[in-house]
Amino acid sequence: MMDMRNLVKRTIVAALLAGVATPAFAEDGYDLWLRYRPLAAAQGTDTAAITVLGDTPTLRVAGAELTRGLSGLSAHPVPLVADARAGAIVLAVSSAPQLAALRLPTEALGQEGYLVRAVDLDGRRVTLVTANTDRGVLYGAFALLRWVQTGHPLAEVDLSSTPHVALRVLDHWDNLDGTVERGYSGQSLWDWWTLPDYRDPRYTDYARANASIGINGSVLNNVNAKAESLTPFYIAKAAALADIFRPYGIKVYLSARFSAPIELGGLKTADPLDPQVAAWWRAKADEIYRAIPDFGGFLVKANSEGQPGPQDYHRTHADGANMLAAAVAPHHGIVMWRAFVYAQENAEDRAKQAYDDFHPLDGKFASNVIVQVKNGAIDFQPREPFHPLFGAMPKTPLMMEFQITKEYLGQATHLAYLGPMFEETLRSDTLAHGKGSTVARVVDGTLDRHALTGMAGVANIGRDRDWSGSTFNQANWFAFGRFAWNPDDSADAIARDWAAMTFEPAPAVVGPVVKMMAGSREAVVDYMTPLGLAHVMATGHHYGPGLWISDLKRPEWNPYYYHRATRDAVGVERGPKGNAATAQYAPALARLLADPKTTPERDLLWFHRVPWTYRLKSGETVWQGMVGDYDRGVGYVAGMRADWAALRPRIDAERFAKTESFLGVQQREAQWWRDASLSYWMSVNALPLPAGVRAPAHDLAWYKAQRFPYAPGNP
Amino acid sequence: MMDMRNLVKRTIVAALLAGVATPAFAEDGYDLWLRYRPLAAAQGTDTAAITVLGDTPTLRVAGAELTRGLSGLSAHPVPLVADARAGAIVLAVSSAPQLAALRLPTEALGQEGYLVRAVDLDGRRVTLVTANTDRGVLYGAFALLRWVQTGHPLAEVDLSSTPHVALRVLDHWDNLDGTVERGYSGQSLWDWWTLPDYRDPRYTDYARANASIGINGSVLNNVNAKAESLTPFYIAKAAALADIFRPYGIKVYLSARFSAPIELGGLKTADPLDPQVAAWWRAKADEIYRAIPDFGGFLVKANSEGQPGPQDYHRTHADGANMLAAAVAPHHGIVMWRAFVYAQENAEDRAKQAYDDFHPLDGKFASNVIVQVKNGAIDFQPREPFHPLFGAMPKTPLMMEFQITKEYLGQATHLAYLGPMFEETLRSDTLAHGKGSTVARVVDGTLDRHALTGMAGVANIGRDRDWSGSTFNQANWFAFGRFAWNPDDSADAIARDWAAMTFEPAPAVVGPVVKMMAGSREAVVDYMTPLGLAHVMATGHHYGPGLWISDLKRPEWNPYYYHRATRDAVGVERGPKGNAATAQYAPALARLLADPKTTPERDLLWFHRVPWTYRLKSGETVWQGMVGDYDRGVGYVAGMRADWAALRPRIDAERFAKTESFLGVQQREAQWWRDASLSYWMSVNALPLPAGVRAPAHDLAWYKAQRFPYAPGNP
Repeated sequence: MMDMRNLVKRTIVAALLAGVATPAFAEDGYDLWLRYRPLAAAQGTDTAAITVLGDTPTLRVAGAELTRGLSGLSAHPVPLVADARAGAIVLAVSSAPQLAALRLPTEALGQEGYLVRAVDLDGRRVTLVTANTDRGVLYGAFALLRWVQTGHPLAEVDLSSTPHVALRVLDHWDNLDGTVERGYSGQSLWDWWTLPDYRDPRYTDYARANASIGINGSVLNNVNAKAESLTPFYIAKAAALADIFRPYGIKVYLSARFSAPIELGGLKTADPLDPQVAAWWRAKADEIYRAIPDFGGFLVKANSEGQPGPQDYHRTHADGANMLAAAVAPHHGIVMWRAFVYAQENAEDRAKQAYDDFHPLDGKFASNVIVQVKNGAIDFQPREPFHPLFGAMPKTPLMMEFQITKEYLGQATHLAYLGPMFEETLRSDTLAHGKGSTVARVVDGTLDRHALTGMAGVANIGRDRDWSGSTFNQANWFAFGRFAWNPDDSADAIARDWAAMTFEPAPAVVGPVVKMMAGSREAVVDYMTPLGLAHVMATGHHYGPGLWISDLKRPEWNPYYYHRATRDAVGVERGPKGNAATAQYAPALARLLADPKTTPERDLLWFHRVPWTYRLKSGETVWQGMVGDYDRGVGYVAGMRADWAALRPRIDAERFAKTESFLGVQQREAQWWRDASLSYWMSVNALPLPAGVRAPAHDLAWYKAQRFPYAPGNP
Repeated sequence: MMDMRNLVKRTIVAALLAGVATPAFAEDGYDLWLRYRPLAAAQGTDTAAITVLGDTPTLRVAGAELTRGLSGLSAHPVPLVADARAGAIVLAVSSAPQLAALRLPTEALGQEGYLVRAVDLDGRRVTLVTANTDRGVLYGAFALLRWVQTGHPLAEVDLSSTPHVALRVLDHWDNLDGTVERGYSGQSLWDWWTLPDYRDPRYTDYARANASIGINGSVLNNVNAKAESLTPFYIAKAAALADIFRPYGIKVYLSARFSAPIELGGLKTADPLDPQVAAWWRAKADEIYRAIPDFGGFLVKANSEGQPGPQDYHRTHADGANMLAAAVAPHHGIVMWRAFVYAQENAEDRAKQAYDDFHPLDGKFASNVIVQVKNGAIDFQPREPFHPLFGAMPKTPLMMEFQITKEYLGQATHLAYLGPMFEETLRSDTLAHGKGSTVARVVDGTLDRHALTGMAGVANIGRDRDWSGSTFNQANWFAFGRFAWNPDDSADAIARDWAAMTFEPAPAVVGPVVKMMAGSREAVVDYMTPLGLAHVMATGHHYGPGLWISDLKRPEWNPYYYHRATRDAVGVERGPKGNAATAQYAPALARLLADPKTTPERDLLWFHRVPWTYRLKSGETVWQGMVGDYDRGVGYVAGMRADWAALRPRIDAERFAKTESFLGVQQREAQWWRDASLSYWMSVNALPLPAGVRAPAHDLAWYKAQRFPYAPGNP
């Protein structure tokens, strides 16, 4: 056998020089933003060595990640050495004896914050990555890598950050049969069938990616939960994942089916006030904690869309949540109880039901319960006004639930950067305690002084090689993590970081990529749901337009329910003259929303029913404005295609081609949305298109006839 | 920006030297057996250059593959050059003017055979890869690569081969919703949703892998077909795949739902003798051929397991097949009509029904119909006697249908090399025209002089990174292709090639790997279905033992139906004293099978019902022999674990670990099979275990209570 060094050399040369050989690095998107390719410009990233003081599993992975990252970025090997040389990077928790003399200001860092700066250690100048816990050190290591990846000189590093939110959680809507509800990137990442025996290296890479953006929790299974996920068979599988995630500071949570005591325990009831039910859950929690000592707790969807819940027994959501909370409390677990509820037998506007159910329960939840509220009152639309529960339950910790997977925003293929959507919601001012009472301050707990805070993102992660179905979908996972760490972060700054890390930090790349991303979500709003429209997607799979659907049994199943267009007017009147949904907001805001003239035009048709001839601030009628929006949306996609085409010389072939083809799909589908919508509106309002506007390609019957029975993600 | 050469160099160095860096080559199994790593020993693989004479898409991919392969294997760049230098490899079809003077014996090569040998070309010694078609040249290029990959000196190459079978086809049981029936390796490889726009590079790698083993057809969708696969929406997607596969000599086929004229065409009937129905199919075929000019044709599962078919209209399978055959005949398409039929309302033994239905139709099929027959009469069991239709329909082309995916052989995780199973079936002698009338000769058409010949394998391919769910499952895909090329090939020789190509050609690796593989399928037979037992798996998902199930509505749904064990006896009497299924074989064979004493013991309980005390040739009773088989099967798995453990130093970490963990699963499950089976048999026959044999770990009730509601692959 040839010696290893020679073999390795031959390996590389072969890979490099063969005309069509396997590339040394497959640019298939697997690396996400942890893409440690050599930086094109000398960035002063060279460092002598890395030294980890202390030894825990988390410190070990922090050291390994820095070694891997800096070796890759600087294109030279950076060794891990025991003693800190001059120029080294040193990782240590703040209590390490070697740091005692430095008197670093680490108190404010809490349990997860970090500090990265140059210090003198025993007379040697080193870059120190420190924190009060090893988790904090890991976050600091990733922050240092990001600093370098985004083109900054290592020598100038001086970073400190502490998360504003305690629970930064991905919700996986993954089913035990391997499908993913609203998943557009392949099967569930969890191969339940080979767990716990086989520990796919991919699980570790998932944990690395999450830790790099500060995510510290993972709800493994769908909120539409199966009781079986709580059986020993599946608990063992969850425990295997928890073991893999633990060094990365990530806790595992499970969605709990409320009726599990009946289905698994053989009880006759799941009434939360029944002592046997409570005892069953306590025993179940004890069993889970024996397998997963740091189990995070339960996420529950109850009494919503057919799921069982406490209301089945005439108990409140608080009764249900508190019973579960008591089961996990001895183990310091928590319960995330979803406020996404609407009942088919409730005649009230769907947009009002969650508030009606939950607002009266403010202050009634146990201290280890946090109520999880979607960003808007309907369901993850391209745009929704912030949910009226934010600011309305001061005595209750509320956590944000964003949807990272793009159920309603073009699914797998459309390029829609959600950063601006997250930002828009978080910066919205509830006016609950006067100006500045932003949703971000509800979420980070500062508004009403809650320590239990959280943000959940419905994951867009599957077994597809690039994790999220497209390169640009990865940006939404990244942005979610960043906003969960700091709800006051900026979508633009996050996009810049992501683009630099995912492609390269050169302005010639970052500039156009960020430009594409910046308006991409607004473009989706424009070509799907302009002016505050919502939920006009085809039913079930939510793929493509379905504005005309009005014949399904329950009113809220029909897109028509959400726009109610007639010959004369369009929109749902939710002001005082309508169903008064605006009154669910704080009075100061409710007053503004009561009048179309003081309602943001972007939300006009959400809150108000107006004539087609209603004048917008631009002077155009609603109809004219709507037509303009559709065309602007379509035009934006054309612009993204042009921007991307110009980037061809700077992007590797494989990722370039995939995005290029997806943008082609998006352009065709944006046009379809625009044309189908205009066809439908004109069939209702009988208005002509403004001069110079192109007529739809087909008649309305054609659009109505489209069927997509196997659209993905539809349970 | 640094210059490219420097960047590339930095890239490699970084990847190599970083302690935990992304390896230059991810050893995740993606490369399959096309793993062009530098050979450890100098094998004389260096070649000056590659020259392709002529220019077609297929010649281009042949040249590219050789460049890629030889550059990788020799660890130096092998350029493609226009003029053949001395020492070059030259690719050309035999009609190329440059070869005229050589007078090569290429006539016998037909349309797909190849010749690889050293020749003098214009006074220069070169290695010539030639064939009568560019497809043949491609096969020759892969044969040359295999020669080198298996450790042979390039200078000694002298290869010639011609496929014995015309249609070498993978049947994908892939559904339009992305699931795969009996698939254990992730979602469907076909991302129907992004096709035809996005052409995943993986589709090309799929074609490369297939071409490398001679597979020339791909049935894209499940035999349990949806009519929608024949709509323009899906035809366009199939056409995109056909475009990608075409240079690799692979034709696309579709499974056709027999009732599509009703579902898509709005007709009131799908009666094959109805002129409107025939016209609908002709028009549909024309439409498909407009999109896919070389479309292969249709595969049909009719009147089986609930699928519609001609018998719904009191027509025969021949009526149905011939009507479809007429639709594709003008385009030179074919129909593969499955003989896997059994009807719930038929009281006859399930093992007899296909013969009963099809034997009378011999000679009644159109010339472009081939009847596709599973290897055995039940359903892809660990062992079945060959299907009695082989040899029984001399006037009808019959193609073999093997199952590559291991529905009944441990599914994803068990290591079971199917080469010996393929070989055993193909070498079985039907005695139809005297000795030597092997199944292989039925399949290759020599027995009854058919030119239309074929072999189909139900694919084990999904979107998992390693394609087939495990490294060793890849060997079954490989072996299928090789046996389809030459049904007289040897399972052992194929295993040797595969091991050398997949790992390395060193005897220290190939030896133990082939040893593990050699007995692995027999081990599954031993621990699941010894002595001719069959179909004793749990119902539906077929995962794990279900021998005791006897309460389902239809008799053949119950494992009990297949063994009928009582206190005194076990097995199904299919001899003359029973249901006379043995009479479906040729008389000379039927006579042997009529008597348990002249029936191969491996098939004993398939053909005969015998007392538990029946004496085997070894002198043991059936009960003793059965117990011994179970234990031998479990023991074999322990042996494979030990063999694999010893290979640790020679196998990359990622592939080593996955196989190691899967062998652990297999050992546990083999034990489960053995214990559950013994528990059940003892509950029936009340016999003691032979002395020294370990009692099952649990009582029968425990095994009966096991439930696996989300077992994969179950539609």
